Amino acid sequence: MKELLYEGKAKRIFSTEDEQTVLIEYKDSATAFNGQKKADITGKGRLNNEITSLLFLKLQEQGIPSHFIKRISETEQLVKRVTIIPLEVVVRNIAAGSLSKRLGIEEGKELTKPLVEFYLKNDDLGDPLLTRPHIYELNIATKKEITILKKKALKINTFLSSFFNELGINLIDFKLEFGKDAEGSILLADEISPDTCRLWDKKTNEKLDKDVFRRDLGSLTEAYETILARLGGKQHV
Amino acid sequence: MKELLYEGKAKRIFSTEDEQTVLIEYKDSATAFNGQKKADITGKGRLNNEITSLLFLKLQEQGIPSHFIKRISETEQLVKRVTIIPLEVVVRNIAAGSLSKRLGIEEGKELTKPLVEFYLKNDDLGDPLLTRPHIYELNIATKKEITILKKKALKINTFLSSFFNELGINLIDFKLEFGKDAEGSILLADEISPDTCRLWDKKTNEKLDKDVFRRDLGSLTEAYETILARLGGKQHV
Repeated sequence: MKELLYEGKAKRIFSTEDEQTVLIEYKDSATAFNGQKKADITGKGRLNNEITSLLFLKLQEQGIPSHFIKRISETEQLVKRVTIIPLEVVVRNIAAGSLSKRLGIEEGKELTKPLVEFYLKNDDLGDPLLTRPHIYELNIATKKEITILKKKALKINTFLSSFFNELGINLIDFKLEFGKDAEGSILLADEISPDTCRLWDKKTNEKLDKDVFRRDLGSLTEAYETILARLGGKQHV
Repeated sequence: MKELLYEGKAKRIFSTEDEQTVLIEYKDSATAFNGQKKADITGKGRLNNEITSLLFLKLQEQGIPSHFIKRISETEQLVKRVTIIPLEVVVRNIAAGSLSKRLGIEEGKELTKPLVEFYLKNDDLGDPLLTRPHIYELNIATKKEITILKKKALKINTFLSSFFNELGINLIDFKLEFGKDAEGSILLADEISPDTCRLWDKKTNEKLDKDVFRRDLGSLTEAYETILARLGGKQHV
């Protein structure tokens, strides 16, 4: 009984026979600038499904739990049902994107230490940046939960930065989402893919992420295939 | 030897014979939306000079030091020379303005507790909101200094809220700037006026602040004269 529970910009979520399990289908659509730029890119769903599955497995090996259960087809994976905390947790190692633009920090400048930011997950408001007092005022998470989210995000960053580094890739920044399972435990959720990370080739600084789409820098699927290949995944080109 | 040291949107700063004292001249210009809306409003400089002087004196009586020395003419005051910390420290009691717009909180909603925000004082960047990690990354202030700024801002809020309340005015929110004097002490600086506060009549909710100009709600000088009159200052209408 596969019933559509939710459709987002890049994914569809379906119920399964198990109440505690949902199915995520990765779509071929690419969007940027809060949905103002859109395209259908054949193969994108498959690539992000495969890359996310590989990365969530790697993180689980490191003792970092997530909602991920298993990949079941080219574009589908099964995950534990969680209630998403409406925060985008962004970790930055090197200034780029909105940080550079908002604060006038040159793109490519290494930050003194990894920077964790919280944004409100709200398309209508354009995902605004939140300070901790905002989060408490909006009753989104408690002080204790924010401390957990930040700690988890930094742990994930430590592992992923070193993991990508060994593959010749600089992890510039990335966005995480977390959810609470039926027991109230906070689990890493959503996806980790070139849609949600900035990944630059270490030698050439070539962008191997969604900025290829945002900034019209060439073929998005070629960039994502490069990431998948370096991760040791199955190549389709 | 009155030499122009700095000209801002609403004030000019001049040197004086005393190296540690500068003269602030309040201008009649009104600006909003980061300078996109401008007007010359006769009397505004006089009103803000008088209101700020009254409020800084009241705060000094409460043991809250500032750069203020004395008002010396209708539009001029002498202040201690400080190096301004490039932060706009905003305290909010009731949701309004950018907070309402950014986070979708209804204007007029009372906040759970006073909210302190820090914005980067940078016109080119449109004074972006900063989180604490941003402030440390940009090397603007230390953790200890931010704690001092927040504590001072909340103390000022406690006094001003109750003071305005007795005058039949709701202090919705306000912006402060701080500077460091020659000894490195952090002092309240800049101004506190209807240009930098949201002030609503308690009975009618009539806006008695710069929103009158921002939102074309009537005569700015009438609103500011109302504030000055309630503060017990000299009226000119």
